[in-house]
Amino acid sequence: MTDKLLPTFADIESAARVLSPYAVRTRLISSPALDERVGARVLLKPEVLQRTGSFKFRGAFNKLSSIPQDRRAAGVVAFSSGNHAQGVAAAAQILKMPATIVMPSDAPASKRERTKGYGAQVVLYDRDKEDREQIARDISGKSGAVLVPPFDDPMVIAGQGTVGFEMAEDFAAIGVLPDIVSAPASGGGLMAGIALAIKAKFPDATLMTAEPDGFDDHARSLNSGVRQPHRAEGRTICDALMASIPGELTFAVNSKLVAHGVTASDAEVGEAVAFAFRELKLVVEPGGAVALAALLAGRIDARGKTVGIVLSGGNVDADLFAKLIQQV
Amino acid sequence: MTDKLLPTFADIESAARVLSPYAVRTRLISSPALDERVGARVLLKPEVLQRTGSFKFRGAFNKLSSIPQDRRAAGVVAFSSGNHAQGVAAAAQILKMPATIVMPSDAPASKRERTKGYGAQVVLYDRDKEDREQIARDISGKSGAVLVPPFDDPMVIAGQGTVGFEMAEDFAAIGVLPDIVSAPASGGGLMAGIALAIKAKFPDATLMTAEPDGFDDHARSLNSGVRQPHRAEGRTICDALMASIPGELTFAVNSKLVAHGVTASDAEVGEAVAFAFRELKLVVEPGGAVALAALLAGRIDARGKTVGIVLSGGNVDADLFAKLIQQV
Repeated sequence: MTDKLLPTFADIESAARVLSPYAVRTRLISSPALDERVGARVLLKPEVLQRTGSFKFRGAFNKLSSIPQDRRAAGVVAFSSGNHAQGVAAAAQILKMPATIVMPSDAPASKRERTKGYGAQVVLYDRDKEDREQIARDISGKSGAVLVPPFDDPMVIAGQGTVGFEMAEDFAAIGVLPDIVSAPASGGGLMAGIALAIKAKFPDATLMTAEPDGFDDHARSLNSGVRQPHRAEGRTICDALMASIPGELTFAVNSKLVAHGVTASDAEVGEAVAFAFRELKLVVEPGGAVALAALLAGRIDARGKTVGIVLSGGNVDADLFAKLIQQV
Repeated sequence: MTDKLLPTFADIESAARVLSPYAVRTRLISSPALDERVGARVLLKPEVLQRTGSFKFRGAFNKLSSIPQDRRAAGVVAFSSGNHAQGVAAAAQILKMPATIVMPSDAPASKRERTKGYGAQVVLYDRDKEDREQIARDISGKSGAVLVPPFDDPMVIAGQGTVGFEMAEDFAAIGVLPDIVSAPASGGGLMAGIALAIKAKFPDATLMTAEPDGFDDHARSLNSGVRQPHRAEGRTICDALMASIPGELTFAVNSKLVAHGVTASDAEVGEAVAFAFRELKLVVEPGGAVALAALLAGRIDARGKTVGIVLSGGNVDADLFAKLIQQV
């Protein structure tokens, strides 16, 4: 790992320019009901409102835009069962590039359909018997398609960093100094991009990753200073946050800039999804709500402070959403 | 009816100043998925994000703020089963005024609880046997509490007009001329306020009320030029839009400024609620989604145009919401 590979604030500024005509410029949202509940001034970054329903479009579009014109006809390939799939497919559609997405055969039909809806070719694999990375590399090798990594890539991180770039702009516009900024972490690309942008403008802000209980590889790695896998067996309702270990590039950034990690249980995440329905009137998927869940559960020392919370995605199946909002 | 009673653009500017420290400044939202679907540039005014979950807080707060200090201790009284109740209760809480809300005994428990949650006293009445206006007037007569009308009041209309005032600001900020602006109508206060604000800044914009099929008193009244009741028997899932006839003051404004009314069926409204869940990631109640429903159903000639659509509220019970999003 050399620092030469790491994205910089300038890369995020470039990404912001590249994304500007295509990404939704989401604005910070405040909720008097939330502020009262946690005794803090909370500013929500609603990436649920982003094109494709999650921040993933940003990194994907920035990466695809960096592919030289003479390589674009060969297209792109990615493996993902969820938001990255849709982000890559939508970015490829806009840039008129062919896209192949390798998805597990048990991925929810709605996610397969949405990915196909953006014009991508979907290749299914058997989660138990096949290696999706190998399948994607084979496709890349045969077709010349560029592999688009979900997080461990400087252009992807810079794209996700525009989330933090816009948050910093909005904080400044309303004259607010954020004390704390927390975002969900899986591979850590979103947090790394946000950290680069926020720390450049607000060096005193404390940054925190948010993860589901058990899937706390960032919390553990930030504590020890070295990349560690999570120890969870089984699953979490946060299907978007199941990466097994922080990325190399992302952790090189996060280990320098992020203070520590917080977690929330699946039950707390479910309550946060229901709270967002009831009080915020936003549709947030479980993985997108984990930082909010940690805040509501008192895992973030927020009282009296100004806190930025990223709601990173809203792609949740109707059945699960219905269950979560009706269980209270 | 004299013109002296009618609110003006200056009243809306005043209301915007009064509301500024307390109301959420909602920002126009765009959705590439929606734009593609209807072939238009659509800008959504998400009043679901407003304090109390609907625009009603604006009119209520502006009205209560206009009550002289020496009358405030006697408090306010209002009758409503829904969003107006919460708007008045929340405004009274902020202004430290006692509030009594007269609600039907069969109102959803969640709406009663939310209204009580803002510190209001809730008085229940029997929808079939008692006259809620009489009950409210009795309370007012005995206590000196000021009756806060749901729509037919200049200060209430001016407060709702800040919705249009902010839309006009946002249109101007992004350099957009709106061709069409549509908002849900029940008593017509929201549309009247919006019409005053939008027409002051964009005189060429075409304004349209949106109503549920059958409950189309505005559509009929705008057609004929005189106030007419709706002819619906029974109910609509748009529980917020069941006023029987346009207000006197509101229609005096709307008959001059609003072009015509559009409607949507309950099924179309349900589809719009599901669309907002799936594609916009916003929680919109049926009554709040009727203008969007009319747009999606092709009742608004939007193709190639720039269209402002007001999503006026998001207070929907979890059970109904679950049903609507799962039915597709």
